[in-house]
Amino acid sequence: MSLEKFSIIESTLREGEQFVNAFFTTEQKIRIASLLDAFGVEYIEMTTPCASPQSERDCAAIAKLGLKTKTLTHTRCNLEDVKLAVETGVNGVDVVIGTSSKLRDFSHGRSINQIIDLAQEVFEYLRKQNVEMRFSTEDTLRSDPEDLFQVYEAVDKIGVHRVGIADTVGIGNPRQIYDLVSQLRKRVKADIEFHGHNDTGCAIANAFAALEAGATHIDTTILGIGERNGITSLGGLVARIYSVNPEYVAKYQLPLLMHLDQVIARLVNVDIPFNNYITGFSAFTHKAGIHTKAVLNNPSTYEVLKPEDFGLTRYIHIAHRLTGWNAIR
Amino acid sequence: MSLEKFSIIESTLREGEQFVNAFFTTEQKIRIASLLDAFGVEYIEMTTPCASPQSERDCAAIAKLGLKTKTLTHTRCNLEDVKLAVETGVNGVDVVIGTSSKLRDFSHGRSINQIIDLAQEVFEYLRKQNVEMRFSTEDTLRSDPEDLFQVYEAVDKIGVHRVGIADTVGIGNPRQIYDLVSQLRKRVKADIEFHGHNDTGCAIANAFAALEAGATHIDTTILGIGERNGITSLGGLVARIYSVNPEYVAKYQLPLLMHLDQVIARLVNVDIPFNNYITGFSAFTHKAGIHTKAVLNNPSTYEVLKPEDFGLTRYIHIAHRLTGWNAIR
Ligand SMILES: O=C(O)CCC(=O)C(=O)O
Ligand SMILES: O=C(O)CCC(=O)C(=O)O
Ligand SMILES: [Cu+2]
Ligand SMILES: [Cu+2]
Repeated sequence: MSLEKFSIIESTLREGEQFVNAFFTTEQKIRIASLLDAFGVEYIEMTTPCASPQSERDCAAIAKLGLKTKTLTHTRCNLEDVKLAVETGVNGVDVVIGTSSKLRDFSHGRSINQIIDLAQEVFEYLRKQNVEMRFSTEDTLRSDPEDLFQVYEAVDKIGVHRVGIADTVGIGNPRQIYDLVSQLRKRVKADIEFHGHNDTGCAIANAFAALEAGATHIDTTILGIGERNGITSLGGLVARIYSVNPEYVAKYQLPLLMHLDQVIARLVNVDIPFNNYITGFSAFTHKAGIHTKAVLNNPSTYEVLKPEDFGLTRYIHIAHRLTGWNAIR
Repeated sequence: MSLEKFSIIESTLREGEQFVNAFFTTEQKIRIASLLDAFGVEYIEMTTPCASPQSERDCAAIAKLGLKTKTLTHTRCNLEDVKLAVETGVNGVDVVIGTSSKLRDFSHGRSINQIIDLAQEVFEYLRKQNVEMRFSTEDTLRSDPEDLFQVYEAVDKIGVHRVGIADTVGIGNPRQIYDLVSQLRKRVKADIEFHGHNDTGCAIANAFAALEAGATHIDTTILGIGERNGITSLGGLVARIYSVNPEYVAKYQLPLLMHLDQVIARLVNVDIPFNNYITGFSAFTHKAGIHTKAVLNNPSTYEVLKPEDFGLTRYIHIAHRLTGWNAIR
């Protein structure tokens, strides 16, 4: 398992821009990138420069900031798009193409062999550039596994640095993801990235299962914003891994999480959900008497995350009709 | 796997009452119970009558409503409490005691043998009453497995109908839950219930893993409200299981979900999270051009939940700078 040495690919500036309420200006993108850099994520991923002239300028501007975090942009699998991507000066290019029959029939209309040909052309070009290169298959979970492995092995031979699995519609469950990543781990030399949507509540658990099975990179966004109800959230992934061992996330500036969540919530005009991981207002509240009494004795009785590690405090609700005599002694 | 025949134990009136903002009046509790009955959950669980005279009266009042859903109340593991529980007229009593060393040291202070003795006394009494009886161990995930199985086997011999696993602090992950439930499945004849907190984002995935491993009953609350950031939400569990096969949740009145979420959000003074399963405002939105084009062709390209099955509609965002030419043809 790669919990000791995983990397976060923070995609608020790509997947997050696909959230229905997200319309970031250049200044806002620079602010988000800088905060993510301060937090310490290893990568930030940005919308393809092909989306618009502004996207192109913003990619280039952020690539030039000299952040510690590596910059990536995300493109479709064709030569024109990746050339534009490389020209923005980013550190890496994340290439994606749909492999499920649903997407092949109703989206781009290509066969698996055509996909492999395209990918070969794209990565033959990319490997002569000085960039990290990643290949991922959209809608991986509804793709034929044999198709998948054929494509992954082809790009692995060319020398891509990472291959990605994407649960595009949020249909995967942790035991499936564990199996798929375990198999892929045996088939390719490349690092393995996981990107998971949260439609059915498994985005965090799936990312964790992927890491347990040998994935090395996880995609997140702040508050989990993205298409539909979004993907694995940065704070949620951190909470999950912290609960295994706080050392595994000590490389991040955890007390910045609240600020990151607040900034994004404001920019996309939502409230931080009341039950959000770590930063929701109820995250560190204790109410029933049996809980409050024990937490006053020793917080770890009913707490796996220490609020103080995130610059936060707990709230113990005392003297309510549910508390009973235990709480008020 | 018991996806075809699982039951929901809806605990908004017990775990949900432990949410920091929840202070339900009798009238509100009756309204919630009636809506849950209309939705079709198999059980509702209510706060122990020992919490207060109002709790006792409310249990009795709801037990008398003549709902189709079975009524349960939740008590500590002692004779006095379960007697009071039975007197309220509920259909079943959910008994719980902490088995982890954390809770034994800092909460109730009893040894495993003392726990077994207590449980024996309680269930010898209960099995002479005409009620369903459940035994669960609080903080199961941080308990010694040998302690656990010893206690579960003891109560199984007495004939409890269900044994419960509780991830009280939200530390469990799906592969652990799958293993634990699989082992327990071999050790006891009783049905198996799972109750999971969501501190580290696995409450839905863990409930699903429990079902895959043979659990039969899952605890939920509306919007997931409960201690700290709560537990498996009713809507989230439904979304997860629907994604496997909509038939498995066809027994519920899915179009009532939005109303249930809205009513509870109002009563506990929170907003429905923007990214809430099914009922969050972004759940059925599509934005990037590649998505909107494909969804217009065939919604299942980027949707695993059909909004119309929940009485809802999708929103396709067209003509934004991220959409590109694909969306506007
Ligand atoms: O590039 C990827 O791996 C993921 C693309 C994406 O957002 C998705 O498929 O959901
Ligand atoms: O009765 C149970 O199984 C669960 C009690 C509870 O709410 C918990 O342990 O989190
Ligand atoms: Cu995505
Ligand atoms: Cu609980």
